[in-house]
Amino acid sequence: MIIVLKKDATQEEIDHIVEKIEATGLSVLISKGKERTIIGVIGDESLLETVPLEALPGVEKAMPVLKPYKFVSREFKPESTIIEVEGRKIGSEQIQVIAGPCSVETQALLMNCAERVKESGANFLRGGAFKPRTSPYSFQGLGEEGLKYLGKAKEETGLPVVSELMDPRDTELLCEYVDIIQIGARNMQNFRLLTEVGKTGKPVLLKRGLAATVKEWLMSAEYIASQGNTSIILCERGIRTFETATRNTLDLSAIPVLKEETHLPVIVDPSHATGKWDLVAPLAKAAVAVGADGLMIEVHSDPENALCDGAQSLKPDKFADLMEELRAIATAIGRTI
Amino acid sequence: MIIVLKKDATQEEIDHIVEKIEATGLSVLISKGKERTIIGVIGDESLLETVPLEALPGVEKAMPVLKPYKFVSREFKPESTIIEVEGRKIGSEQIQVIAGPCSVETQALLMNCAERVKESGANFLRGGAFKPRTSPYSFQGLGEEGLKYLGKAKEETGLPVVSELMDPRDTELLCEYVDIIQIGARNMQNFRLLTEVGKTGKPVLLKRGLAATVKEWLMSAEYIASQGNTSIILCERGIRTFETATRNTLDLSAIPVLKEETHLPVIVDPSHATGKWDLVAPLAKAAVAVGADGLMIEVHSDPENALCDGAQSLKPDKFADLMEELRAIATAIGRTI
Amino acid sequence: MIIVLKKDATQEEIDHIVEKIEATGLSVLISKGKERTIIGVIGDESLLETVPLEALPGVEKAMPVLKPYKFVSREFKPESTIIEVEGRKIGSEQIQVIAGPCSVETQALLMNCAERVKESGANFLRGGAFKPRTSPYSFQGLGEEGLKYLGKAKEETGLPVVSELMDPRDTELLCEYVDIIQIGARNMQNFRLLTEVGKTGKPVLLKRGLAATVKEWLMSAEYIASQGNTSIILCERGIRTFETATRNTLDLSAIPVLKEETHLPVIVDPSHATGKWDLVAPLAKAAVAVGADGLMIEVHSDPENALCDGAQSLKPDKFADLMEELRAIATAIGRTI
Amino acid sequence: MIIVLKKDATQEEIDHIVEKIEATGLSVLISKGKERTIIGVIGDESLLETVPLEALPGVEKAMPVLKPYKFVSREFKPESTIIEVEGRKIGSEQIQVIAGPCSVETQALLMNCAERVKESGANFLRGGAFKPRTSPYSFQGLGEEGLKYLGKAKEETGLPVVSELMDPRDTELLCEYVDIIQIGARNMQNFRLLTEVGKTGKPVLLKRGLAATVKEWLMSAEYIASQGNTSIILCERGIRTFETATRNTLDLSAIPVLKEETHLPVIVDPSHATGKWDLVAPLAKAAVAVGADGLMIEVHSDPENALCDGAQSLKPDKFADLMEELRAIATAIGRTI
Repeated sequence: MIIVLKKDATQEEIDHIVEKIEATGLSVLISKGKERTIIGVIGDESLLETVPLEALPGVEKAMPVLKPYKFVSREFKPESTIIEVEGRKIGSEQIQVIAGPCSVETQALLMNCAERVKESGANFLRGGAFKPRTSPYSFQGLGEEGLKYLGKAKEETGLPVVSELMDPRDTELLCEYVDIIQIGARNMQNFRLLTEVGKTGKPVLLKRGLAATVKEWLMSAEYIASQGNTSIILCERGIRTFETATRNTLDLSAIPVLKEETHLPVIVDPSHATGKWDLVAPLAKAAVAVGADGLMIEVHSDPENALCDGAQSLKPDKFADLMEELRAIATAIGRTI
Repeated sequence: MIIVLKKDATQEEIDHIVEKIEATGLSVLISKGKERTIIGVIGDESLLETVPLEALPGVEKAMPVLKPYKFVSREFKPESTIIEVEGRKIGSEQIQVIAGPCSVETQALLMNCAERVKESGANFLRGGAFKPRTSPYSFQGLGEEGLKYLGKAKEETGLPVVSELMDPRDTELLCEYVDIIQIGARNMQNFRLLTEVGKTGKPVLLKRGLAATVKEWLMSAEYIASQGNTSIILCERGIRTFETATRNTLDLSAIPVLKEETHLPVIVDPSHATGKWDLVAPLAKAAVAVGADGLMIEVHSDPENALCDGAQSLKPDKFADLMEELRAIATAIGRTI
Repeated sequence: MIIVLKKDATQEEIDHIVEKIEATGLSVLISKGKERTIIGVIGDESLLETVPLEALPGVEKAMPVLKPYKFVSREFKPESTIIEVEGRKIGSEQIQVIAGPCSVETQALLMNCAERVKESGANFLRGGAFKPRTSPYSFQGLGEEGLKYLGKAKEETGLPVVSELMDPRDTELLCEYVDIIQIGARNMQNFRLLTEVGKTGKPVLLKRGLAATVKEWLMSAEYIASQGNTSIILCERGIRTFETATRNTLDLSAIPVLKEETHLPVIVDPSHATGKWDLVAPLAKAAVAVGADGLMIEVHSDPENALCDGAQSLKPDKFADLMEELRAIATAIGRTI
Repeated sequence: MIIVLKKDATQEEIDHIVEKIEATGLSVLISKGKERTIIGVIGDESLLETVPLEALPGVEKAMPVLKPYKFVSREFKPESTIIEVEGRKIGSEQIQVIAGPCSVETQALLMNCAERVKESGANFLRGGAFKPRTSPYSFQGLGEEGLKYLGKAKEETGLPVVSELMDPRDTELLCEYVDIIQIGARNMQNFRLLTEVGKTGKPVLLKRGLAATVKEWLMSAEYIASQGNTSIILCERGIRTFETATRNTLDLSAIPVLKEETHLPVIVDPSHATGKWDLVAPLAKAAVAVGADGLMIEVHSDPENALCDGAQSLKPDKFADLMEELRAIATAIGRTI
């Protein structure tokens, strides 16, 4: 931690600041420049957590030097993490594709979709049983029934299943049926839910919150990791900006930034980011080119009659075409799909 | 709903769109202009919920005409809602002030703070027992013990208590001790939690999410209202923007906007919005001038040793001064405090 | 400047960094912590301008300690600047009100408006002769003719005039007619224009850019000041955020932040910020309460027929009412209007 | 234009609104629904420009149906525009690469850089002679001398030259030396400058403003086009968001959105978007994959000593490597580079 003092900070103020810091067991290094006095703190910054440095008289600003996360940082674990789920390796040179409908609607529709995406080369099946919807009057998902349909679809196709958890009270139930627990964007800072999935030990797909910085996102991953569960897949799905031409603004720069900061695999969801099916293909291609470890894509056999997010779902034929195109790009960058 | 068609929409496409709409029981009005054909939908727009209009061939865009919320809208209930809690009327001409520490730390500190803010004219005591913290390594609150301290402080001072709920599993416990349940910014779209507090019937203080539009905020209030609980207090606490000079950007324009859109009372939290104690007073004064029904202000007897958010807490003396200043402004606009 | 090195920075890299810094004439202080080595630079940071510190091998991040602006900072000049224009003192305890139509349309309309706002207590007349419009097909202002109308209106009412400059080639012409040169939000970083108005020595009203941080805004003021002209009035007029309920988000927190950072007077334009006339009054009141030194308000005698921004213009009667309300708030905070 | 009336709009108000619209020569279609009366306007919406619809009594909101731009829209010109500059075709299946230093510093450095980027396959040379800098104390460019160096570099390498125009007074001078005039992000809404370059007839590279929506960006292109110059290249360079991990947030979704909306070619500048040289390569690859017609990349032979933006400049070797990688991706999507 570097503490920059105000120009007119008094010796008494400096002494008081030093005293507060030393009370935590840390030591300081004081550098008196021409313009400013600066106090450097030596040692574990997290001990300063409870010292409101910027509220102390004489302090202009406090600038952290170290990262606030540990277990998820690449500094802590330099080699990339590969998460294996039923033989599929997320984070390996093979790009993993998770596909399926936004929400589970009927067994027949789900099964049809699962078979079609499997044929085209998808590695995982997605489908929401519990749906977070902006309006209380929208379809909220089938709940346990939906989970059963997912279980059945897995049985028949062999595709492992990804589905969202919204409520800590459903954790056990969800774990019976799914292979990867999804935490949605709106729950990225639902800290109780994070702690809960951290305890399960199951792989977790953690979507980025609409207004979350990369740093906050990694802190949410750290919540899960701090419970001993480091099987975490980060999923970029667009952030909220002033632009309204797309539903959200897909932040593809975050992928190489994360690759430097963390050892965890990172995937991209172009369907939720754009909200429009015809933008999904170009952004999926860009995601592969930028270095994502996987994709999460909404596919629906009959988007016009989808109970949720039909406008952003690809038809199975379009998805098959896209997989072909992605294959070419994966090859161009020395990966497979 | 107004549906604008693409310039080259075919008659077949138009027929198909009309068919989809009429299948919901609604009727249409087609207007063929020189540049565009437009389809107007007559009747309850919410029936179109499951028709992905923008995914239908021939559609350029669909523009909703009506508001997506009902129970919380001023159109539904023109007169302003006043929520009465132990004789205090939130939404009345008397501006209500909720004050207290960010988190409950010790019984003594809380009691001291409660007494001091009461003396200065605060109407409610705030204090967090369950704390949502960005880092898993930060102080997470005292839990039930903290609630007990709050109960005790209420007993002694008579100040009704506001405290945050983070987990549906704590609802019953929290309700034993608090008079107003707070839903924090990070949980504004935790729909399960909203449904849960909707069922309690207790007054709910709903903070605005960091990236939530006014419309989405009202939809979250509608979640609570749809359970039969319309004792909802909206609390503006800053939104996330590109500006980093303050922690968040307090959106005071939202207050008069909400006053038009909804009958619910609206209060402002300048402490969390700015993150700096010396900005709290000017923004509290602005909040009263702009028409807020109340304020939520962090006060701590010893900010330097606060376990959380010390930098944004006022000392009791500063709070007393502020209350004086607010009184003058309230008088100037014909209200009391 | 504080330079944080990467965990694995080599001695060779450190030597190279130090060499680059010392080449500018500055000296360094190296502190080897347990986790990181940190290099502190002693002396004038602006000399490091041309050293791309973050591009040097071994550097993790470089954190400036000092402010990048000088002449406009309160550190440089602690007492608040008062700008006097024909007896009116901007930045004094008397709040100054600039009112008038968005654009100058006819001599008669302008005269009528000028008289009405003067009667209600406005101190300055505003009116655009050169109008920056998003569309090339919108009314672009009357140009020189408009300036003449402004000159005439000043002659008759005695109100000094504020009008916008868009093109360096119009500087001389504009200066003949106006008392304060306005630089619009879209030109806040039109550095040539800033340099040009810096040379005139006339008071400049510098609007904040839609996406400008407080720091960048002050840097633009520094451009003007660096030409020897420190008669600069800052004008907050809303920033661009995700919220669409108002045209922009008025950032009232910026007012107390600026009061700390700079000695320059700060005013607020609630008309452009909100884009809706019925939001102007509450936000004008909030602006006074938060500590603004003045207001810029659009008034039009016949908003329904305004050639520009009619939706956000107050009628003269409403403006008169607002002035009454503002007077009460000014009194409450110990100022006049 | 669709005008939604307030629930309680009176017949008198409706008559008044209709009268205002019909006065412009347009006709209306009134639809009285159960919840709302809606007025549809038939004909050219731009005639409503001067009617402040939302300020008329009884109006809740006015929703435009048509696009505000004409000449730049794909609706107006369905086939994609190809801009030919000395045999290079921007907007063709061959991706064009503009490379070179941020600012022109010395003839020798520029020449070296020009030769190196040409060798690696760049099609154009970039280099700033007039530099918009946030600080008045930063290097502002060599001006005319810089332009001469660019002219010389073109002479020797045959690479056509792109350079930025900041001031309408420099237009003629710049046109002597450059093949494509660049309008920088900060000047995207400098309408005088747009009009000026529209008159030159020279190809214009129009960067997106930091806070500009796609719609506003196209309106700025329309300014140029309305002067008869449709040789416009759009350049995405990142928008301002809350995220600070990168300098700006590169909005790659804008590329396919623009491909639908406009016939103009679109390129991407990953150097300014990210601000970090090690993020340039992954985002350049993503830009090609998403469908950009070209790239603008900063290359400097000696980034450590660059007078501007050294941190985001690639060394010539890295640029050569990148071109190889881009070639593979271009091939994968059926284009060349």
